[in-house]
Amino acid sequence: MGEQQQQSAALPRGFQWGAVKAGIKASGNLDVAVAYAPRGANAAAMYTKNQVVAAPVTVGRRHLASTGGRVTAVLVNAGNANCATGQPGIDACLRTCKAAAERFRCIFDEVFPSSTGIIGVPFPVDKVVAALPAVQAALGETPDHAELFAKAIMTTDTKMKVARAVIDVDGTDVHLFGAAKGAGMIHPQLGPPHATMLVYLFTDLAASPASLREFLQPAVERSFNSISIDGDTSTNDTVLLLASGASGVSLDDRIGEAFANALELVCGSLAHQIIDDGEGVTHVVTLQINGAETYEEAKQVAKAIAHSPLCKTAWSSADPNWGRLLAAAGYSGVAFDPNRVTIRIGDQLVFENGVRAALFNEAAAHEAMSAREYTIAIDLGEGEAACTFLTCDLTAEYVSINADYST
Amino acid sequence: MGEQQQQSAALPRGFQWGAVKAGIKASGNLDVAVAYAPRGANAAAMYTKNQVVAAPVTVGRRHLASTGGRVTAVLVNAGNANCATGQPGIDACLRTCKAAAERFRCIFDEVFPSSTGIIGVPFPVDKVVAALPAVQAALGETPDHAELFAKAIMTTDTKMKVARAVIDVDGTDVHLFGAAKGAGMIHPQLGPPHATMLVYLFTDLAASPASLREFLQPAVERSFNSISIDGDTSTNDTVLLLASGASGVSLDDRIGEAFANALELVCGSLAHQIIDDGEGVTHVVTLQINGAETYEEAKQVAKAIAHSPLCKTAWSSADPNWGRLLAAAGYSGVAFDPNRVTIRIGDQLVFENGVRAALFNEAAAHEAMSAREYTIAIDLGEGEAACTFLTCDLTAEYVSINADYST
Repeated sequence: MGEQQQQSAALPRGFQWGAVKAGIKASGNLDVAVAYAPRGANAAAMYTKNQVVAAPVTVGRRHLASTGGRVTAVLVNAGNANCATGQPGIDACLRTCKAAAERFRCIFDEVFPSSTGIIGVPFPVDKVVAALPAVQAALGETPDHAELFAKAIMTTDTKMKVARAVIDVDGTDVHLFGAAKGAGMIHPQLGPPHATMLVYLFTDLAASPASLREFLQPAVERSFNSISIDGDTSTNDTVLLLASGASGVSLDDRIGEAFANALELVCGSLAHQIIDDGEGVTHVVTLQINGAETYEEAKQVAKAIAHSPLCKTAWSSADPNWGRLLAAAGYSGVAFDPNRVTIRIGDQLVFENGVRAALFNEAAAHEAMSAREYTIAIDLGEGEAACTFLTCDLTAEYVSINADYST
Repeated sequence: MGEQQQQSAALPRGFQWGAVKAGIKASGNLDVAVAYAPRGANAAAMYTKNQVVAAPVTVGRRHLASTGGRVTAVLVNAGNANCATGQPGIDACLRTCKAAAERFRCIFDEVFPSSTGIIGVPFPVDKVVAALPAVQAALGETPDHAELFAKAIMTTDTKMKVARAVIDVDGTDVHLFGAAKGAGMIHPQLGPPHATMLVYLFTDLAASPASLREFLQPAVERSFNSISIDGDTSTNDTVLLLASGASGVSLDDRIGEAFANALELVCGSLAHQIIDDGEGVTHVVTLQINGAETYEEAKQVAKAIAHSPLCKTAWSSADPNWGRLLAAAGYSGVAFDPNRVTIRIGDQLVFENGVRAALFNEAAAHEAMSAREYTIAIDLGEGEAACTFLTCDLTAEYVSINADYST
């Protein structure tokens, strides 16, 4: 038994995917997608912790609660977030679920809705409903179908984001496939039950909603909850894990660790793809915070740096201005003694004992930061706790993407 | 008795100002400045709450404590922050104080040092010490002298920042003059005793250090502690209020309110000038948060919006994408019911009852946001508390200023 990331075509059985162009995106691209489990699937989800949540988040949460975690169809649109749309938005979402339930012959509550796009604009419910027959006709089980699904959910993303893993259980393959979207408004803070990061994870393992939830939470904490592009937490962030059971293999103690690893692999890959495709990103930076008293404090330091415009702009020009890193750690709210801190950029030691490292080589640090991807390691010298956080630079391109009059 | 903002030349008596070019700024501009009180002045100060503080902040705090709040000379340099420079940085700072004390014939602790500029680069102590005779020779009491002081402390500032007020006390004028610098790394969080925002306030009122402190704190809370350009809190932020007593008028109950008003007027003006001259700023936005349960919660909502890259980039293009405002409020950590929230941009109602306002006029909102300066008012509908917070847009120019290899 072992798991591996697999580039091959193998997808979890028990699911079909499809997508069509419904005229919601101004670009005219694919914008309504469905993932369909003909025999249903058990489900666990995590949603944004934003106080303001979109209608589909409210409805999806209610549906999972009322079915005890059963999903037959996932209905996603891109181009309109159906957020800050009040009761009319809820009503519109319910209408799309009702239409999908009729189309896919399941009970109403087994439709799980998701939306991503602009906030505050009335939801184009008629376009979604009208697209359903064509989406149904487009459904299929091949990698091409799964990729259409992954493409349709994109908004400002420039690349489709998918990841796969396979676990060999005594000769039987258990599959895991994930599709994600997200490039801006990315600082997911997902809580038990809470995305405009949308992540859909499909497996043909057999597992109860409760055990899916138990596996999903730590995987999300170390992946999607440990990334930030701009510090803006969306009103629509959702991670949904579906298990069709079609492999015939049950999630038990024997394969728990392999499944946890596979889930971590797929979530980690998708989280990395999201940062790598972040709006205007030219550098992907891993913040490795060590020597903290607690994991939470390590993460608090990482977030202060990841959200500092001065750190992020310095990264965009490969400027080894480490004083900005230290200043951001300093205002994070975490107590530490600057004299015990060490800072490394790549394998360059740049700061220790309260001063610039004796061997600090600005040209070498600049060189290390010129790579598309590198690590900044900060040891606070206070304790044993650590965290790894993935973020990116802030460029004029990010500003221009988001200053575009109404995106 | 009344106070007024005065464009005239009147400055507080009992002070002299001067500045010279010491070769610390790469530009070759004025970079070492002194404010000198020949008979000394009582003082109160507030400093950054950043865990990492520059050497002059450590030394300045110690000096005020040991003298019980007496200052004879303020010695400021721009171009090097003397931060993250360890014990050598402290020693360098002490050497400049010692040299200044000899030059200005005061006890060592009555020299108050400040630095602003790059972090982590060894402090050019010899340049500062060598500049002292020339600074002393340059001292004078005229507005031109005060303006040289204000110019020398600038770093990425494009404009000198000064403000004045006069209080007429039974025919005697009491003067207040303030000089400030700051354009980036601006999100001051000043606490009793903590800048790279530097603010120096001079008055010829007679007042004890304790009563100066009592007046300074509320004025700073409503001005410098209620502004943000980029959310980065500096390691060097300092506000220093000096009272020479040269007017012969004492701070007592009779003039307390007038002095508080004058201080608020001057601090408010300087805070506004800092935002207006923020790096790359094209729009100054006042966030008026009403209907919060507490002042702290109102401020927390204001800060989430002021630090949201998505809100700030939308402002740069006058994009009335109010959904981003609501989303940022939603992740601020403050609990509220979105259905009770109203949002106004200028005098346009854009959001109420959980949905886009019926009369929302996108063109009119865009028009309102095209002004250099406007107000966004958000009522949370939860309570009676309010705050006013001043911030600005995020532009490609900000990115380019801060991405410049080593500023």
